[in-house]
Amino acid sequence: MKVEKTIKQVSGFNAAGIHANLKKSGARDLALIVSDRPCVASGVFTTNRVKAAPVLYNQARLTSNANSIRAVAVNTVSANACTGQQGMQNAERMAMVTAESLSCSPEQILVMSTGVIGTQLPMDKITTGIERAAAGLGSHWTDAASAIMTTDTRPKQASVKVYTVDGDYTIAGIAKGAGMIAPNMATMLGIIVTDVAIGPDLAQSALVKAVNRTFNRIVVDGDTSTNDMVVLLANGASGVRLNSQSDIDDFIQALTDLSGELARDIVRDGEGVSKFITLSVTGATDDEMALAIGRTIAASPLVKTAFYGNDANWGRIVAAAGRAGVEFDPSRARLWFAPGEELPEEGKGLLLFEGGMPTSYRESDASEIIRQPSVYVTLDCGQGRGSCRIWTCDISHDYVSINAEYRS
Amino acid sequence: MKVEKTIKQVSGFNAAGIHANLKKSGARDLALIVSDRPCVASGVFTTNRVKAAPVLYNQARLTSNANSIRAVAVNTVSANACTGQQGMQNAERMAMVTAESLSCSPEQILVMSTGVIGTQLPMDKITTGIERAAAGLGSHWTDAASAIMTTDTRPKQASVKVYTVDGDYTIAGIAKGAGMIAPNMATMLGIIVTDVAIGPDLAQSALVKAVNRTFNRIVVDGDTSTNDMVVLLANGASGVRLNSQSDIDDFIQALTDLSGELARDIVRDGEGVSKFITLSVTGATDDEMALAIGRTIAASPLVKTAFYGNDANWGRIVAAAGRAGVEFDPSRARLWFAPGEELPEEGKGLLLFEGGMPTSYRESDASEIIRQPSVYVTLDCGQGRGSCRIWTCDISHDYVSINAEYRS
Repeated sequence: MKVEKTIKQVSGFNAAGIHANLKKSGARDLALIVSDRPCVASGVFTTNRVKAAPVLYNQARLTSNANSIRAVAVNTVSANACTGQQGMQNAERMAMVTAESLSCSPEQILVMSTGVIGTQLPMDKITTGIERAAAGLGSHWTDAASAIMTTDTRPKQASVKVYTVDGDYTIAGIAKGAGMIAPNMATMLGIIVTDVAIGPDLAQSALVKAVNRTFNRIVVDGDTSTNDMVVLLANGASGVRLNSQSDIDDFIQALTDLSGELARDIVRDGEGVSKFITLSVTGATDDEMALAIGRTIAASPLVKTAFYGNDANWGRIVAAAGRAGVEFDPSRARLWFAPGEELPEEGKGLLLFEGGMPTSYRESDASEIIRQPSVYVTLDCGQGRGSCRIWTCDISHDYVSINAEYRS
Repeated sequence: MKVEKTIKQVSGFNAAGIHANLKKSGARDLALIVSDRPCVASGVFTTNRVKAAPVLYNQARLTSNANSIRAVAVNTVSANACTGQQGMQNAERMAMVTAESLSCSPEQILVMSTGVIGTQLPMDKITTGIERAAAGLGSHWTDAASAIMTTDTRPKQASVKVYTVDGDYTIAGIAKGAGMIAPNMATMLGIIVTDVAIGPDLAQSALVKAVNRTFNRIVVDGDTSTNDMVVLLANGASGVRLNSQSDIDDFIQALTDLSGELARDIVRDGEGVSKFITLSVTGATDDEMALAIGRTIAASPLVKTAFYGNDANWGRIVAAAGRAGVEFDPSRARLWFAPGEELPEEGKGLLLFEGGMPTSYRESDASEIIRQPSVYVTLDCGQGRGSCRIWTCDISHDYVSINAEYRS
């Protein structure tokens, strides 16, 4: 499916992103995404045992009221996590204020927060901000995508148009990422909207499938946040229904492609990232083994600093696979590097490691590949048919700076 | 037990550390530790599935010949890992050359290597180096400790004298660490010698106990190496035997105290470390849960960068506990910060988090603590009696530099 990096129009949906005096910089810091009619909604939430108030609040809403959600309100600067009873009351209050501004029920509102853990929401600013955002709704998707950013350096948005015999519909999404990204659930904020008409079961199953192949397959630093979630709102305003299995397959594919674009954008814009790495683990005994190895490699500080240093130190990749807690057998493994985000037409690139030892590759060939802005790494375990693909990045001086100085 | 940071004399043992033309800098790079009589030997080895040739070689020696080990030969620069059949032959050859120099059997030699993965040992230089080291043996413990360093900035050595009714004996050790340190087995090199007379069962069980409380409780960057190991050689040259349970308990305590000193030195000298953190997890349902939480916090890049930035961002600690894969309940947890390497006489320091939310502590009080060179963090889970204590550190710009440029 052809994914565009902009959002033009999604029938029945409007957005706003404003400065509500939360960010000291004066940048946009509060977003509203609103449907003019009730939506079927689904969500995927952080697996962290420490869940922020908005996560708990939305989980309750999607249990009680998944068929008539109208809007999502998002604030930055405070994560409303580790904030106790007052934090839950503030999440409820944020939904109530939004509902009043939109003349609907608080039950129809989802809320998201991102920022520092352990600070209460500044409810005065948020109340005023929501009222102003609601008064300025339009096709302001870039504003909304900008207003949910924290340490992101650029807004992330994408859309895809899907054609059916009944007519066409659109899926569009905005996301924020930057730090605390690990593939152990949707460790970021993502809001995906569509004007196709679907039921709640498909909304949930399609979202889970798409997230597991995309947002759950990215690693920036291995941390998993208390706050992060992806929600999908479907309002049916295009009049298009999915009438066949082929239509449903197309919807899932389009949702996955859109999510993949946003997920890769999160990695590319990860804190201090200078190199985009696609890591393909194949030949594992099963997919779980592949994923365990892939996650360990992607989160390894030694692997990430080697990529940052343009050092083809593949031994750190093999060593990381060896400590993944699975029955990895180095004597059967092979490792290739290739330039770019996709595999070359033929083969897997330069073979570096085979039979428990390095091949007779030339160091200059490996160096040339690793100096590229994106590198494709294939590790074949030679043990079975399990596989996974993870998008990850290097770790740089800037990552340390950003996270050492985050609250200052 | 009173642990000294130097090694004067251990009866029957000699050491040497020389420059064998392995390090470009001209620094010492090859060490020999030799007993004048056969030793009872034990070892603890990396849990990485990718084991370097010297690890496999020593495991075989300690199975076949644990009661008559004479010496340990150590080289730096090449790790002899991922080196296939030739790597195993080189490890054997290194033992053979050492045995010839000392006029004993190759079966009596242990070998260790540390450095880059995937390069073969330069056997000419190593052969010549071993011969020269063997010719210059003496109480050259500082030389030996220096010669096993990689990115370490200073040699690590310690000794302890133990008094019994039969007389006194000494335990002494040297270690190297710096990077790839995680508490998932002896992820470093350590050589501990003693002139007490003990049997192989006690040698092994005491070493495992000591390592589990010390070397296995440190985290620098969360990576676990292919090479690392701790060995204990006991030659009985003091004439002292352990005649009572009290003697045995004293031996284990002394070995643990010595190992703790070396382990803390490894953390203090971790790559780019600017802050030493003692992390005490208490009140877990069992020790395993405490350890899972402690390891996750200690390896979290977000926690480590916050410490580097002198930012009392305790929310990242609670969030890391939440993703440790255990049933952590934030509403029952409490978190304290205190300055120093040991807890203050009374209490646990400044209480920051309780009842699922921050206490009313003053940010300036938290900042004052976190600006200290060492910080003691206590996380009480409020769920049971399981506990663990981990020594860890921050992650800095220098860590990234060191590991990005390691091979250049």
